[in-house]
Amino acid sequence: MSVSPEKQKIIALVVRQNTPGIEEPARRLTQFLSGAGYRVVFEADTAAYLDTLGIDGIEAMSVAEIGEQGSYAVVMGGDGTMLGIARQLARYEIPLIGINSGRLGFITDIPLERMVPALHEILQGQARAEERTLLEARVVRDGAEIFCSVAFNDVVVARGTGAGMVELKLTVDGEFMYNQRADGLIVSTPTGSTAYALSAGGPLLHPRVRGIVLVPIAPHALSNRPIVVPESSEIVVELVAGRDISVNFDMQTFTSLQLGDRIVISRSPHTVTFLHPHGWSYYHTLREKLHWNEYPTNEGKLT
Amino acid sequence: MSVSPEKQKIIALVVRQNTPGIEEPARRLTQFLSGAGYRVVFEADTAAYLDTLGIDGIEAMSVAEIGEQGSYAVVMGGDGTMLGIARQLARYEIPLIGINSGRLGFITDIPLERMVPALHEILQGQARAEERTLLEARVVRDGAEIFCSVAFNDVVVARGTGAGMVELKLTVDGEFMYNQRADGLIVSTPTGSTAYALSAGGPLLHPRVRGIVLVPIAPHALSNRPIVVPESSEIVVELVAGRDISVNFDMQTFTSLQLGDRIVISRSPHTVTFLHPHGWSYYHTLREKLHWNEYPTNEGKLT
Amino acid sequence: MSVSPEKQKIIALVVRQNTPGIEEPARRLTQFLSGAGYRVVFEADTAAYLDTLGIDGIEAMSVAEIGEQGSYAVVMGGDGTMLGIARQLARYEIPLIGINSGRLGFITDIPLERMVPALHEILQGQARAEERTLLEARVVRDGAEIFCSVAFNDVVVARGTGAGMVELKLTVDGEFMYNQRADGLIVSTPTGSTAYALSAGGPLLHPRVRGIVLVPIAPHALSNRPIVVPESSEIVVELVAGRDISVNFDMQTFTSLQLGDRIVISRSPHTVTFLHPHGWSYYHTLREKLHWNEYPTNEGKLT
Amino acid sequence: MSVSPEKQKIIALVVRQNTPGIEEPARRLTQFLSGAGYRVVFEADTAAYLDTLGIDGIEAMSVAEIGEQGSYAVVMGGDGTMLGIARQLARYEIPLIGINSGRLGFITDIPLERMVPALHEILQGQARAEERTLLEARVVRDGAEIFCSVAFNDVVVARGTGAGMVELKLTVDGEFMYNQRADGLIVSTPTGSTAYALSAGGPLLHPRVRGIVLVPIAPHALSNRPIVVPESSEIVVELVAGRDISVNFDMQTFTSLQLGDRIVISRSPHTVTFLHPHGWSYYHTLREKLHWNEYPTNEGKLT
Repeated sequence: MSVSPEKQKIIALVVRQNTPGIEEPARRLTQFLSGAGYRVVFEADTAAYLDTLGIDGIEAMSVAEIGEQGSYAVVMGGDGTMLGIARQLARYEIPLIGINSGRLGFITDIPLERMVPALHEILQGQARAEERTLLEARVVRDGAEIFCSVAFNDVVVARGTGAGMVELKLTVDGEFMYNQRADGLIVSTPTGSTAYALSAGGPLLHPRVRGIVLVPIAPHALSNRPIVVPESSEIVVELVAGRDISVNFDMQTFTSLQLGDRIVISRSPHTVTFLHPHGWSYYHTLREKLHWNEYPTNEGKLT
Repeated sequence: MSVSPEKQKIIALVVRQNTPGIEEPARRLTQFLSGAGYRVVFEADTAAYLDTLGIDGIEAMSVAEIGEQGSYAVVMGGDGTMLGIARQLARYEIPLIGINSGRLGFITDIPLERMVPALHEILQGQARAEERTLLEARVVRDGAEIFCSVAFNDVVVARGTGAGMVELKLTVDGEFMYNQRADGLIVSTPTGSTAYALSAGGPLLHPRVRGIVLVPIAPHALSNRPIVVPESSEIVVELVAGRDISVNFDMQTFTSLQLGDRIVISRSPHTVTFLHPHGWSYYHTLREKLHWNEYPTNEGKLT
Repeated sequence: MSVSPEKQKIIALVVRQNTPGIEEPARRLTQFLSGAGYRVVFEADTAAYLDTLGIDGIEAMSVAEIGEQGSYAVVMGGDGTMLGIARQLARYEIPLIGINSGRLGFITDIPLERMVPALHEILQGQARAEERTLLEARVVRDGAEIFCSVAFNDVVVARGTGAGMVELKLTVDGEFMYNQRADGLIVSTPTGSTAYALSAGGPLLHPRVRGIVLVPIAPHALSNRPIVVPESSEIVVELVAGRDISVNFDMQTFTSLQLGDRIVISRSPHTVTFLHPHGWSYYHTLREKLHWNEYPTNEGKLT
Repeated sequence: MSVSPEKQKIIALVVRQNTPGIEEPARRLTQFLSGAGYRVVFEADTAAYLDTLGIDGIEAMSVAEIGEQGSYAVVMGGDGTMLGIARQLARYEIPLIGINSGRLGFITDIPLERMVPALHEILQGQARAEERTLLEARVVRDGAEIFCSVAFNDVVVARGTGAGMVELKLTVDGEFMYNQRADGLIVSTPTGSTAYALSAGGPLLHPRVRGIVLVPIAPHALSNRPIVVPESSEIVVELVAGRDISVNFDMQTFTSLQLGDRIVISRSPHTVTFLHPHGWSYYHTLREKLHWNEYPTNEGKLT
């Protein structure tokens, strides 16, 4: 490789903390990428973690530096690790590649053992790019914004511990939808439709469906079914009744809510791009994760 | 009426607090019952409340006195009022009669306007008696009971505010059922099957079905469906993972739980008897409450 | 009105057959529209029906003539009436206006008593236009198309009478999704999401969501949840196993299917435009139809 | 063994047809049982099938003879095989033992490889006996019974091919429940609660719960939820509207129904007894069959 270091393309590595046995694959990946002419850097927390594992010669970068200078970010871990870094990198244009260090993930879809050939393919330009939307949510009190965050999976407004239920007033694009009494409400992206929203009875949304799904959690009105609204919608959730209500952005909780507060949710102007190896299929991932080819119910019905 | 007061049968009245317009029917009911030869007493809180409304000549009794001396307790209010008093009176044998002061309730099934003829019928012995089971739950830490309560609707073990989820280990009659990851678990009587359990996707249980239904709240495993176990089952819920977990007995919350605590739930030795007027039907109540004769979906399918 | 008849804009009326009491409103509507300077014509079947009711002076047109010459079509009836005529008019550009002759419909949203002012508003140009997608489905056997139809609500592949279940192989945009064992599969537009798909557990889709929802009917695999795919998807349903399988396009059934047949479903190139009066809200309609402001479950939870 | 043949206890074997590789285990089981002093007979169809596989020295008996003379019936196959024979043997007192020839079944719970030790245990008297209820259903037209059958899993009333939907009038113990518009209705025993009823959204019922569950299939009214009624209930399903309606008893279909026909369903006076090896657990079977320890949803939620 005769390219001078300052002209090399930068690939950043993010590795899940506390993952037994991760050194060897991390080292192998680094060697492969260096050998392929890339400058490999490590996200700062990852660098500190790998340092404790005795891996030398590691160059660290902050998330902001990665976002600004990197060509790709490779995540080794589970969907949670990817979720965390994707939220932080969303404002930059850097595409993400997910390697699952354990079980297949919905968004970390390359198994460790296929890591090298898959990355080879992707870096050769045979990647399948897939764009994912994020939500942006503001907490508004008395007309003023008091908190703001983004979510890759979902924004969840929910009751507190032992606190009965909440009553939420929903308005979409200025139109009143309903007052909902429930444990809470999940406002989810297509990405989040395989997470909490699925547990609460929501539908799956293909990532290219330009929609946001509202899934009530244990609603009192039996006809309060999940509803998919256009991605362009502005969703306002006003707290009407309940105690100790909190709002979660992915896994980050904001708790100091008061009745009358409004949570204003809309599509983020940023998106995240995932790169998948050629031949990747969203439906394949679903089929594997959800055991779609197994039939638990009485096989007597089949004969 | 020539019966001496001490030989008169006692009927206790329990009235929901803060119910505008309740004086007139309460007065009317009292007159009817006195006229029918009963000694009408008021549950202590009700007496204090009615006193503020300027109703005189009220005789008050504690819940325990009502339980020991009363022949019947009549509740005017909603299902919540009935639930509260029924839990307290469960240890006594006194039958309960429910009058709804507002909308029809599942267990306060006599409308105000039919109150007098319905009570007339019931007191004449034409009542339809219906027995309801309760649950008894103990919180056990390191082998010792640290809390105990009864529930008429349900015992609910649930995650705290913004606290991710819980992992619960379920054992029924000493047999391991599963480790469940969810927002929580509802253990419900047939009475509770029309309450929170229904919102969380549980089935309805006719009050005479001798079963307890376990309904997971937003379970991570999609096959974690509601399951009905025999009423005689001993259900042990052990806290495996999660933060700020609480357990609710009807609406009373016990919050100081720790991982490793076990909640041991079984049928209470006590039952509650409701008296309904002749012609009362459980299915009629369901039909009215659940709008079973309305068809929201596209009527185009009907033609 | 000094406009010569041949220059008058044509409004077509479609009225549901066998609707007691429909003459008077039909007559009133005709008078209003004539008075407003339109040439009112009646769809041929409607004309024949109204003729039996003794309404004179009716000008009839075929559906094709209405499509080609009409400026608007007004439907008086229920959602089923609208569904039927919308499928036939989809290939033309004529916008539709729905008046419900009985209960509020999802797509016949103007009540009889607001008919005249609502139409006045709409014809003055204050209409809210809303575009709805249709599906186009072809039955392919041995590579050749043997049947073709369009659907406004849904395409349903389902098992026959007492015929166990079907096994269907689903492919979306050439990617294998799964082999599904179930009573059948509903492939639904956003419009159909309030019809059969809703009964089978599907989510609601706002009409502007560019998606198609696949809802399995009683699937054997418990994780076979409803899934929303992009509107641009080509969905292929291949019949793998089962007897007496049929495919329904809205309410029209095609029954001579064989194992190995493939049903190829995609968005129709045509759309249907509905005109609503100013102030119309999709969420309002849902709220009314689905009783979203009523709470059947135990009100005791609220206090 | 010095016992004379006529005094030997009879064990009947029922083997699923067309099960590749079944000869060897069938032979091994026969040898084990003969060696243990039992007279092994084969159900007539099984005998004919095994004869084609070249197994000699087989003694055949009709189902009636097995019911009258046998001490035990052992079924090798799947749940379907067990279901078929259990329905026929229900009127006799003979207990059943289920060996699954392939995947674990809900009611064929002994794996082939544990067959011999499990049967040894059971025949030594260490069995866990479990009693299962059956349904009895009569079709009544104009007051006269025109058909009668029993069901081990479920009685299903459902619409025909491409036939819109049915309207059914439900009456339980003489009390009107509701008129239901749906694809159909499943009336299921606890045994059937893991079969079709589960696919249609019903709850699981432990076999010792003395209940019958009614599960609507794709009901038009969203609040038409599954309901568990006491086992002693008489359930009457009257056909109000629909075409080509059929009723299924397990997998046997009766199709010549007319509007106005009534299907009268109640508990059968007979029960079936299953024998399980010591240590068997119903919850273990559920856990295995339903993958209760797997969590498909986003593991990011777990960290």
